Parts: sequence; structure tokens; C-alpha cells
Amino acid sequence: MKSLFLLVLGNTEVSLIPGISVAGATPELTKYTPPADAEYLFYDKPKIIDAIPVTPEGHPTPAIITKAARELANFPILVVRGGTYLAPKVPHVHISSIVGRDFRREPALPEAGEIIERAKLLGQELERSGIEELVIGESTPGGTTTAQAILWALGYEGKTSSASPNNPQELKRKVIEEGFKRAGIEFGGLKENPLEALRQLGDPMLATVVGVSLGFKGDVVLAGGTQMLAVAAILKGLGEDLSRFMIATTRWVVEDKSATFIKTAREIGIISYAADLDFSKSEFKGLRDYEKGYVKEGVGAGGATWLAVKAGFSPEDVVRKVEELYRKLIS
Amino acid sequence: MKSLFLLVLGNTEVSLIPGISVAGATPELTKYTPPADAEYLFYDKPKIIDAIPVTPEGHPTPAIITKAARELANFPILVVRGGTYLAPKVPHVHISSIVGRDFRREPALPEAGEIIERAKLLGQELERSGIEELVIGESTPGGTTTAQAILWALGYEGKTSSASPNNPQELKRKVIEEGFKRAGIEFGGLKENPLEALRQLGDPMLATVVGVSLGFKGDVVLAGGTQMLAVAAILKGLGEDLSRFMIATTRWVVEDKSATFIKTAREIGIISYAADLDFSKSEFKGLRDYEKGYVKEGVGAGGATWLAVKAGFSPEDVVRKVEELYRKLIS
Repeated sequence: MKSLFLLVLGNTEVSLIPGISVAGATPELTKYTPPADAEYLFYDKPKIIDAIPVTPEGHPTPAIITKAARELANFPILVVRGGTYLAPKVPHVHISSIVGRDFRREPALPEAGEIIERAKLLGQELERSGIEELVIGESTPGGTTTAQAILWALGYEGKTSSASPNNPQELKRKVIEEGFKRAGIEFGGLKENPLEALRQLGDPMLATVVGVSLGFKGDVVLAGGTQMLAVAAILKGLGEDLSRFMIATTRWVVEDKSATFIKTAREIGIISYAADLDFSKSEFKGLRDYEKGYVKEGVGAGGATWLAVKAGFSPEDVVRKVEELYRKLIS
Repeated sequence: MKSLFLLVLGNTEVSLIPGISVAGATPELTKYTPPADAEYLFYDKPKIIDAIPVTPEGHPTPAIITKAARELANFPILVVRGGTYLAPKVPHVHISSIVGRDFRREPALPEAGEIIERAKLLGQELERSGIEELVIGESTPGGTTTAQAILWALGYEGKTSSASPNNPQELKRKVIEEGFKRAGIEFGGLKENPLEALRQLGDPMLATVVGVSLGFKGDVVLAGGTQMLAVAAILKGLGEDLSRFMIATTRWVVEDKSATFIKTAREIGIISYAADLDFSKSEFKGLRDYEKGYVKEGVGAGGATWLAVKAGFSPEDVVRKVEELYRKLIS
């Protein structure tokens, strides 16, 4: 089966709210995370900034897992700029340079319709190109908050995960409630209008993944954790049959007790795969801490592992390769 | 064989020199031609501007041929922004937004190396994606002048064609000689250094097509007229084996007595295909005038016809579809 790995990049102003995102050493640095993640897949380190993205405590981006899986399985990667502050310094499909706005103050993405339309054209061309399976990962700081807002607006009670072991659920709830108040909507209020949910609360990554998924008619693996649940919920709301979709994520997301991955996936009706990665024996604290709930997923790490496993490698092979890459990074 | 049609967009300040280019109703409008060509392939008319690109006398862009061939054969299209003033309002791979400078005054493309490197990454990913044949077209107003400058710098005496029946060869020669003088080079002087020729005299389309061609290892159809001879000459100069390359163009380029397509192709050692399109019976003057030497080629018209022919359609089918599209356009 001919698979293509898409990495969709998005930014939202929501990541600048202090305490909401650890997908960057500081809120300001979350602007660099999506392009830096994309660049690291192609080079020994990012180009736009001199180091790979890390959490405030220094845990490495999950791009290292994606890069490891790709170095083993050699699958093709297409970077897609759904909407970011900065363009990555690698070839990428430009969909937009629109950043999602802080939905507490204004509609997040009035351009959602246009982004979906463009992304749909891309999906159609990939379909024509003979690709049979799209594996779609993402890098979107603050994205679990927009995803949770969407899920709630569509009537799913789920909680999204976080790249922090201390999922800031209280803060997320407060931010989302402010957004609901501003937009005059309530829980489940946009059940019949998923596009309006995207416009009011979404981010450009979500719109892009929805559009590509609508244009492409083959198998789609949504490679991410709880953010991809929001994509699946929107697609279902738009009347899309989810039987050609699955979610590929990591064990760390599935096991996250502060989130509701399995429950919400079941409610939406989408199947999932969880990459059985284990960093507990790693020689590096930054990686061992993944076992404590740091980082967990992102940059399609679970989906990239899925591709490596389908190509005959084991999760242990991926872990070994990650160790090797990390050793190289810090030497 | 799984083929992908790439449309590489480029701009050069050279198109603003009065009299050099008719790939736009005015020199200023040549800035819009590449994105408008790309958009027209996906929509009933361009988005960035309200009408399709035309010559000063109103002859329609050859994108109409490409669009016709695609509507018949349904091949996939990927738009690539090699370097243009404006981004097309359709999904496209971003390589750069660098426009080639007027080589009479300064080096045309000091960034050629970086553009090639990025485009090479794209070619590698397309290779990994299972694409077996790349058909690479272009839209680059002023591009026959940069191409001729490159050919001369590399020691080929060839003359490039033109979208005008009155190929402005005297003006081209004067402009190129000024460029050679500014850069301190002479005929054949950069034979051993094709990258320097690109930097001094090229345009971002040429650099992008060279890069993609180096990264992709399968069959490459250079879909264009004499501009693609410059690409072939650069690739040969870089030591690339041309046996996996061919040029696909139109009968109008091959028959152009003001240019030296066949002779120069032979000198470089690249085979070619010429689409046998005939608009002499067209109900529209704008198309009949193609037979008088207007337009001739561009937007990969010959290569798109090649794909349609391989898919079982005849050049007459393509012509009929062009008539249909043109009728729709002017109604």
C-alpha cells in the first residue's frame, strides 16, 4: 500500500495564554515549534531556530520519534502549512499563513471555509497521484485546547490530553467557557454545525486536516491524540463515513488519566491504534520522562510508528533509533 | 506508469523590460501570469485576477491546453512556487518567494543554491511517494531571455523561442550582452560552472526545475520549449545523465524558425516530443493565431498533451476540449 505522511502545521494565539501549552520552552517560542518540527525531520537540527523544540523543562519534541520512524521505514513526507506565524524553511505545501485567533476575544478562524476548500484540492490531487493511505500528523501548540472546545461545542464531554503531566484542565475549562460566552454558544450547541464550531473555536490545523480528508477518498490515518478526535468529530458531523478513518496515537495518550481518549473515540465511533513505545530504559532523562506523562504525542509520532511497524520494524527498533538521534543531538 | 504533473512558477524582473515578454497584456501584468495560470487549472477562471492571462493582443494563455488535457486525462497536478511576486490562491508547494533580478544590473539569483537544495528535497519526497514519471511544466514571463542567456553562457549558440510571432531576438541579444558585460563573462565562459550561470543569469523556475530533477531519480519530462533546453543544458553541465530525461513541447516551438529548438536539443543530447496540436480550424481567432506563432507553449502545454495522448486521447480530442473551454470563458 502506497502511504504518504503529511505533517500539517498550525498555530493559534491560544498557545500564548500562560500555562496552556508546553509545546515550546516559553509561550513565545511556541510560534517556532511547528516550522522547527518540520525542519528537524529533514535536517540534523531545525533551520529557523538553532535547537529542536522542547518543553519548558527541556523534554524533546516528539518529532524525534517521527524522524526515527522515517529513517527506518523511509516513508515519504509532505509538510503542509495549514496556518502558522512562520513558514518552515523546507519545501511545504502552502495552504495559508492564517493563525487561529484567541477565541475568548473573537471568532478563531473566520477563514475556515476557505482553508477547507484549498486543503480539499490538495487531498484530491494526492488521490489522483495514486497515494492509497494518508497518514496525517500535526504540530499545533495550544491545539488540545481548541480541540477540546470543538468537542464540547459538538456535544462530546471528552477531555483532551496535554504535553504536560499536569494537564491544565482547570485553565482549559475556564478559557473554553470564556470562548463559549463570547460566541454565545453552549455545550453541544453547534452539534448540527461543525463548520461554525471550527470558525468560532478552531485552529488552521484542524481545518486543513478536515479539508484534506474530505478531498482524499482513500484510507486516512489521523496521526495524533485527542486533537485528532476533534477532526473525527467534525468529519462525522459533516456526514462523512468514518469507516475509512482511524486514529494512530501513542500509548501515552491512551493511558493519560487526565484525558478521555478511548471513551471519546468510542463515542465518535472511530477505531484507534496506540504505538507501544517505551522509553523507561532510556539513557536520557528527557526521554525517560515521556513515561511520566511529558510530551506524549505530536508530529504524528504514533502514526509514523504505525508506518514503521507496517514496514516490518518493531516499536523497540523505533525506540533504539530515537536514542541514537538524541545522542547525536546533544553531543 | 504513475505520472505527476508539476507546474513550476517563476518570475524575473526581465519580463518588465518593455518588448521582451508577451506573457501578459502589459509588462506589469506579467507579475500575475504565473499564479493566474496555476489557478485557472483548478477553477473556471483565476482568483488573483479576474481574467486568464493573455498577450497584449488578447491571445489566451497556453494554460487552456494544459487544463483541457487534464480534464480529459485526469492526471494529478502539483503547483510549485519556485519564486514569484505573488502566491497563487491554490494549494502549492512553496520553494521561495524570490524573484529573479534584472541581470543587466546585478546577479539574477544569488539564492540559486538554496533554491536547488530545497527543490531537491521535494524531488526526493516525490520519488519516495512512488511517482514514476514527473512531467514538469512552467509559467515564467521573460523566461526565454534568461534561458537564452544561460545557453550562451554554457556555450550553446541556440536561440530561444518566444510567445510572440515577432521573436524579439535583437532586444534579447542586447539585454544578454549587457548582462554578460556586467558579470564579466563571455559566450561559453561558464561552461564548467552551470551553477554560476544560474546565479548570474537565471530565474527561480530554472533553479527549481534543476533541483527537483536532481532529487527525483525516475523519468523526467521537461514540459516546455526552449526554456527547458536551458534546464537540460544545466543538468548536463552538472554531470547528470540525460537518458532519463526528455523534453515535451509543441509543434509550434519546433517549427519556430526564429529559434533553434531541434538543433540545440541535439547539441545538448536530449530527445523530444512535439504535441501535434492544430488550431487552424478553430472558431476563435485567439486560438487560430497560435498557428501564426502566437503563444506557442507554456504551462507545460506540450507535456500535458503528452500525458493525454499516453492516456489514450488524441491531440484532436485535446483541441476539441480547448475549444469547449474557450467558449465557456468568453461566454
